[in-house]
Amino acid sequence: MGRLAELFDPETVAVVGATDREGAVGRAITANLQDRFDGEVVPINPGRDEVLGLECYSDVSNAPPIDLAVVVVPPDAVIDALRDLGEAGTRNVVVITAGFSETGGEGADRERRLREVAAEYDLNVVGPNSLGVMATPSGMNATFGPEHALEGSISFMSQSGAFITAVLDWANEQGIGFQDVVSLGNKAVLDETDFVREWGDDPDTDVIIGYLEDVDDGQGFIEAAREVTDDTPIVLVKSGRTDAGAQAASSHTGAIAGSERAYEAGLEQAGVLRARSVQELFDSARALAGLPEPESDGVAVVTNAGGPGVLTTDAVGDSTLEMAGFTDETIDRLAEAMPDEANVYNPIDAIGDADVDRFGEALEIALEDPNVGSAVVVAAPTAVLSYDELAETVIDKLEEHDTPVVTCLMGGGRARDAEETLRESGIPNYFDPSRAVSGLDALARFRDIRERTADEPERFDVDRERAREILARAERSDDNRLGVESMELLEAYGIPTPDGEIVDDADRARAVAESIEDDVVMKIVSPDISHKSDIGGVKVGVPDDEVYDAYEDLVARARNYQPDATILGVQVQEQLDLETATETIVGMNRDPQFGPLLLFGLGGIFVEILEDTSVRVAPVGKGEARDMIDEIQAAPLLRGARGREPADVEGVVETIQRLSQLVTDFPAILELDVNPLVAGPDGVEAIDLRLTVDPDELADDTEEL
Amino acid sequence: MGRLAELFDPETVAVVGATDREGAVGRAITANLQDRFDGEVVPINPGRDEVLGLECYSDVSNAPPIDLAVVVVPPDAVIDALRDLGEAGTRNVVVITAGFSETGGEGADRERRLREVAAEYDLNVVGPNSLGVMATPSGMNATFGPEHALEGSISFMSQSGAFITAVLDWANEQGIGFQDVVSLGNKAVLDETDFVREWGDDPDTDVIIGYLEDVDDGQGFIEAAREVTDDTPIVLVKSGRTDAGAQAASSHTGAIAGSERAYEAGLEQAGVLRARSVQELFDSARALAGLPEPESDGVAVVTNAGGPGVLTTDAVGDSTLEMAGFTDETIDRLAEAMPDEANVYNPIDAIGDADVDRFGEALEIALEDPNVGSAVVVAAPTAVLSYDELAETVIDKLEEHDTPVVTCLMGGGRARDAEETLRESGIPNYFDPSRAVSGLDALARFRDIRERTADEPERFDVDRERAREILARAERSDDNRLGVESMELLEAYGIPTPDGEIVDDADRARAVAESIEDDVVMKIVSPDISHKSDIGGVKVGVPDDEVYDAYEDLVARARNYQPDATILGVQVQEQLDLETATETIVGMNRDPQFGPLLLFGLGGIFVEILEDTSVRVAPVGKGEARDMIDEIQAAPLLRGARGREPADVEGVVETIQRLSQLVTDFPAILELDVNPLVAGPDGVEAIDLRLTVDPDELADDTEEL
Repeated sequence: MGRLAELFDPETVAVVGATDREGAVGRAITANLQDRFDGEVVPINPGRDEVLGLECYSDVSNAPPIDLAVVVVPPDAVIDALRDLGEAGTRNVVVITAGFSETGGEGADRERRLREVAAEYDLNVVGPNSLGVMATPSGMNATFGPEHALEGSISFMSQSGAFITAVLDWANEQGIGFQDVVSLGNKAVLDETDFVREWGDDPDTDVIIGYLEDVDDGQGFIEAAREVTDDTPIVLVKSGRTDAGAQAASSHTGAIAGSERAYEAGLEQAGVLRARSVQELFDSARALAGLPEPESDGVAVVTNAGGPGVLTTDAVGDSTLEMAGFTDETIDRLAEAMPDEANVYNPIDAIGDADVDRFGEALEIALEDPNVGSAVVVAAPTAVLSYDELAETVIDKLEEHDTPVVTCLMGGGRARDAEETLRESGIPNYFDPSRAVSGLDALARFRDIRERTADEPERFDVDRERAREILARAERSDDNRLGVESMELLEAYGIPTPDGEIVDDADRARAVAESIEDDVVMKIVSPDISHKSDIGGVKVGVPDDEVYDAYEDLVARARNYQPDATILGVQVQEQLDLETATETIVGMNRDPQFGPLLLFGLGGIFVEILEDTSVRVAPVGKGEARDMIDEIQAAPLLRGARGREPADVEGVVETIQRLSQLVTDFPAILELDVNPLVAGPDGVEAIDLRLTVDPDELADDTEEL
Repeated sequence: MGRLAELFDPETVAVVGATDREGAVGRAITANLQDRFDGEVVPINPGRDEVLGLECYSDVSNAPPIDLAVVVVPPDAVIDALRDLGEAGTRNVVVITAGFSETGGEGADRERRLREVAAEYDLNVVGPNSLGVMATPSGMNATFGPEHALEGSISFMSQSGAFITAVLDWANEQGIGFQDVVSLGNKAVLDETDFVREWGDDPDTDVIIGYLEDVDDGQGFIEAAREVTDDTPIVLVKSGRTDAGAQAASSHTGAIAGSERAYEAGLEQAGVLRARSVQELFDSARALAGLPEPESDGVAVVTNAGGPGVLTTDAVGDSTLEMAGFTDETIDRLAEAMPDEANVYNPIDAIGDADVDRFGEALEIALEDPNVGSAVVVAAPTAVLSYDELAETVIDKLEEHDTPVVTCLMGGGRARDAEETLRESGIPNYFDPSRAVSGLDALARFRDIRERTADEPERFDVDRERAREILARAERSDDNRLGVESMELLEAYGIPTPDGEIVDDADRARAVAESIEDDVVMKIVSPDISHKSDIGGVKVGVPDDEVYDAYEDLVARARNYQPDATILGVQVQEQLDLETATETIVGMNRDPQFGPLLLFGLGGIFVEILEDTSVRVAPVGKGEARDMIDEIQAAPLLRGARGREPADVEGVVETIQRLSQLVTDFPAILELDVNPLVAGPDGVEAIDLRLTVDPDELADDTEEL
């Protein structure tokens, strides 16, 4: 266990603000603790000698040593209470009291002071505005909710206290148990990252689940979750997925909403399985908590009913799993064991008169097939099939083969007892074939997360000092922006750019053009003109003898378009063969939660109309950079579809990695676009660049160098 | 009621093959009927005088008049039994017996004979291989399943008997009732289309639901369902959605699988709401059965818990609905009625201490807002909120406003009684906010289906006889294919083609080119060369003085590529301005279930790599043709994105409609591709054509003309 061990396993819990007044939160917490907790409960309240029959202390200073304090005093008294606790040597505090940042104004100020006191005394503070915490092994229920949790191996955090109350009521009915439960509240001190780390170290936690409305520190969370998901799965409902939802979440928590795309990428990179609904959260969690890991993606379906068998097959088709192809031996054995009318291919239809023996035999043969990594038993109620016996058989087969099996015993009341028997052995039964398959799917997806090779970002050898110098130029521009005149920035990070130069007279333009084989491209360079093509500020295929006039013309057009524009010159560049090359875009902006978010896409219609782009949180490894490319729908165009010569995809991969390093090295880069990055068969070249820099941040960077 | 009225409301039901032998199907059916049916049950079995205490007849000929007969005799005896029933004047028969087409070979033959006898005596036959039928008003349970259905207004058909058994067990527990239930079996005579028609006429059926693995006659189904969904919603699980599922379904039913895209389009055109799982089927059906129609898509969310409120908002964002924007008046009223900490914007968070009065007031104010078309009440359990009282309040508000309201009373046992109270008033309570919203979504989608204006296919004035003559040429080709030499076919149907001609000597080529302004395009025309460009068989921008040589070169290239190729000549065509125009594709193939399936897409990468296409079953109306265009991702390109001049989209719409008419007029056209159909700002032109014809079918067409 980690640094929060004592928070979840205290010997003494104080309730600061305990009372026996009916309906008071301070009473509910004391009563919940008293109910089952096997440690000592210490009420603290200067106005009482006794609370619910327990000796009550006037002050923490005269109470016995306290491992965990639950604070329910009025908002104004919270800071002093924390200070007193800190002085008395208590390290773990849950602040139930509301009236902090969630109310804005004065409350936000109060929360700032809370954070300061916590830092001063090194307090682990849950909340404020929390429902409390639970730990089932010791029976500790330090919440004011109406329910105790059953014991189990799922640890559960929630940014909504009501969500915990609702889930526990339902979970108790379903027989689903928990290890630790935390209502995160306002997350002033401890947040999701802390609990992920803690539970990752906890041998009694098999699965971490959560309901989150935001992630405080995206980069820290990714780092922690990546480590933890090496052996403990994390399943999260992150709400505010949609625009409307994000707005609602932001008004609920007061957090600045990061973009859904950043969350999607960041949580995926963190190795988190994301659930879209409460139901999916528990469908996944139950499978992950109780079942072994599937060795392959092949699923066997065993049923007594054709229709439900087809539905299950559809669900497999919808998932990341696949229907197992049986070996000839399996098919022969099934044909021998099953009646003639049975279907011995997958899904195995043991037909309507199948009893538990026939089901068992079919399942046994399927699980012995090397292509089967998991199985779903789907049954419709019949006169000859006992669900209770079938449950026992499934349990035996799972134990024997150590292969995950889930069930979908269709129907209502008929399945209840069997469902409970299965649950006791860790086997989830699902109402619907699609949910059963999604349970298995979670197992396979977690296996893939565990198995993914460490994709550590490479560090390329770059000229960081030179890059810093170029970025510093931004300070001189009005809007802190840099453009194509700063292509050297890319060169400093080893990203190829075309031969050429920015020149400020027509003769020099001609000289540069002559030094370049073939015709050239010429572009006006001005921070005030962002859409060069629209004003005729780009000329392609200019032969050497027309360069002089082209220069004059470009400058004239720019002047004509905007008389007071700052004109830095004209870029004279090698003309690339766009017949065989493809234009791509690599961009970056900063997300408030996750930081630098890289974007990749093909240019033009693909980005603007089809919105065919992929994103990742930087820094990215080679594998992630490659995934960014393969994820877009138009990827086959780069890979050589329609008879084209394949582009240098590895060159694009390396460019993405180098840009990832650049934006990670310089938090001062707020936005960046390499557009286009041209990818041809023989390599890639960055043609144009725009970026925005925060000069203050740059000054900070410099100190570090 | 329609022609099947007697099937669902018979006065006398005979069980042909009745028995009291334990475990026999003939006993189970007799017992199920005897149990609740308020009509007469007539056992028929030559070997018995009495079955389960009822007088048993040796033969239908000596039994009382029979309105409905349930046949459970062995397969070999079924045909004779049907004949006897027909002779005796019985019109409605359910064949329970299996061993027909589902077993192939002899069984298929037997099914053919069954169909013949049914036609001879005009019998309404359900099955064979059916679980039976139920009609709850009379208590008629003519199935051998273990459950009776509760009475309700949902009529339910299923191609899987096991699915019915499983659903009823669960539905009984949930208190969900049915009007009629039919196990379709092999659908030898009566199929889904018959029951859709029947229930569409049945005033006691509010919702039609079904589990289908195939649709026998797609065009007939679309026609029937379109009529019925004018006032009765149809919700279907059509399995075999995925490739694996389709394969499993085909092995289960023996049907040739149509394509999922055809089903998707056909069911949508039919006005069917499609559910992806059993759960979604009932989540939708419960809302449709019990709730009024929403007047708008604006949803109000009322909750006592921020987190669940955000989750519900996300679910609205995922659906076709939207969060209602409240009027200023609503916000003022809410602000007055709610405590300061409450959120009075949508979702309304009445906060944790909300009792039923505050909930009721918030709901009342929300339902009075003109922007609110429906509402979700989402509650987490608290000490101050009684779910039972909340249920009563929701019922009152719904009745008062006649606006649909669903609930998500989170938790388990705590919600049971309230859930039942709500159910009795037709209000579904859902476990999960996302399911609650999907219930409301089904209501809105059905309203849209009801409201969609009749989009009858137009009949254009065409030269059908000329088209037939051109199609007849296909008989002369080896593979019944026609190509660009048959562009006149399109002209006969009023589809514009470029100026030009197919010529077979170089002088004529030059003459044609000279008659055309501007340069021309020249293409080799040969049925043996399908990819002309690949062999250099296309020349663009040919000036008049190069036409002669170009002709010779094209023919030489074709000869060189394939010495024995049939060369029909060279097409000399007006060169279109591809700078301002966009290439599109309109294609058609025939689906085994739905017939002519039209496809639209932009050419090249959009179809080949991005698979950005849309499909509809022909014939299509103008609205459907327009939807085909707007549905593709790249549609903005035609509509004038990126500063382009918009293409003549209405010209494309009309071309789709005219092709729809062509392929509907001539079932002999098996496949057709107009590729490209060029759409420019001033109009459209079909540039190339390929089609395959079935000459035998064409002969049949001719007779009709």
